[in-house]
Amino acid sequence: MNKKLILVTNDDGITAPGIRALVTEMQLLGEVVVVAPDSPQSGQGHAITLTEPIRLKKVDIFKGIEAYECTGTPVDCVKLAKNVILKDRTIDLCVSGINHGSNASINIIYSGTMSAAMEASIEGINSIGYSLLDFSYNADFSAAASYARRIAHEVLRNGMPESNLLNVNIPAVPMNEIKGIKVCRQAEGNWNETFQEGKDPRGQKYYWLTGEFDHKEHEEDTDLYALEHNYVSIVPSAHDLTNYKAIPELGKFEKL
Amino acid sequence: MNKKLILVTNDDGITAPGIRALVTEMQLLGEVVVVAPDSPQSGQGHAITLTEPIRLKKVDIFKGIEAYECTGTPVDCVKLAKNVILKDRTIDLCVSGINHGSNASINIIYSGTMSAAMEASIEGINSIGYSLLDFSYNADFSAAASYARRIAHEVLRNGMPESNLLNVNIPAVPMNEIKGIKVCRQAEGNWNETFQEGKDPRGQKYYWLTGEFDHKEHEEDTDLYALEHNYVSIVPSAHDLTNYKAIPELGKFEKL
Repeated sequence: MNKKLILVTNDDGITAPGIRALVTEMQLLGEVVVVAPDSPQSGQGHAITLTEPIRLKKVDIFKGIEAYECTGTPVDCVKLAKNVILKDRTIDLCVSGINHGSNASINIIYSGTMSAAMEASIEGINSIGYSLLDFSYNADFSAAASYARRIAHEVLRNGMPESNLLNVNIPAVPMNEIKGIKVCRQAEGNWNETFQEGKDPRGQKYYWLTGEFDHKEHEEDTDLYALEHNYVSIVPSAHDLTNYKAIPELGKFEKL
Repeated sequence: MNKKLILVTNDDGITAPGIRALVTEMQLLGEVVVVAPDSPQSGQGHAITLTEPIRLKKVDIFKGIEAYECTGTPVDCVKLAKNVILKDRTIDLCVSGINHGSNASINIIYSGTMSAAMEASIEGINSIGYSLLDFSYNADFSAAASYARRIAHEVLRNGMPESNLLNVNIPAVPMNEIKGIKVCRQAEGNWNETFQEGKDPRGQKYYWLTGEFDHKEHEEDTDLYALEHNYVSIVPSAHDLTNYKAIPELGKFEKL
């Protein structure tokens, strides 16, 4: 049997502990190729690099694994992997992460981790983004890594019906406190932003984004609820943003 | 009656002809405040600036209109407008564009124009992104501007039922060839990318993204179909990316 080909990427950069944990697990499931940003790219969303060239460098930082660092965004990494590095091969699975910090609820929209996974899904590749609810560099990825492997293994074996993109978040608790997995929907939520205002060394005013996440709802079928109750959340996600229920309601706009 | 407050932004930058056309129309409908990037930001998707400060500069380039250029992304512009510039006021409508080039189909995902509009919608503000299917600087925005005004006027007067985000695309034909407006769904499509490979002046290899859009479907209820038949397309759009139909199918993942 041919080994499955697994593309690994992230948005925290190729040296982040989260991607290292993911690479280690994915090696148990198939042939791994890593293409990841050469610097942190959190909050890059679905950005792509149009107005300048990007560079790719083969690096030897994961023992025995083909790996490249890229100057572009997470989405650029996936595009380069598919169209240049793995041009003549079939990618069986793309995994992104393990992100340092939550991508539950509305965070999927801002997340480079999830946008990389979504890009692969747009190209028809089964894709999973993983995020651990712990921002710290020294976070304990062991439980997250174990769930990442189990979920990827299932997808490689049996696919994912009706979907090709999963947003997986893992609570920041030890393995024995995780109660299991819940398949859920994206909770409604948003960031209440404030901007830190200051003056730079040349006296120019600046604004620096900060803010607090606002849980808008805590319904039992949401990812935020699952995570708050120590479940791993899986939200099957899509790139069709159409709000179908609004289509009939907007009929009068056709008369404008 | 109080004048309606309309926030105008874009992703092509504050000096682009498309935003000027939009400002001119919106002045007819209410009080306009412009907060837009100081440089082109196409393809920025939903990127936000986390790792560095951003700057804001008041500029006098639209006669009699309060306007600011910002060093951040389109989404940053909306966040700054809501949380700093217009902090104590209620924004009645956010309009983004008029983009130079299509944001139909999957392009909504990559688009800074649509991401800015989506950001406002996440904050509960009715939002509309407008795009003209012509990339050129000297594009004729007259028909697009007229439709932009009519649609914004309707939203200001009567809201938009079941939705707070519209993706409006306008075919690049003269006004008298436009057949009307169609409310539709986002067509399935993707970009077939190639990378232009070259060497920079220092002999280092680079990759530069290029590609062709692939219409995956041409069903009558899609935005691509409407545009190909010279209709203005309106797709009500959402920030809930949950793929609901996959949730029951993925139940077995809860047993992993």
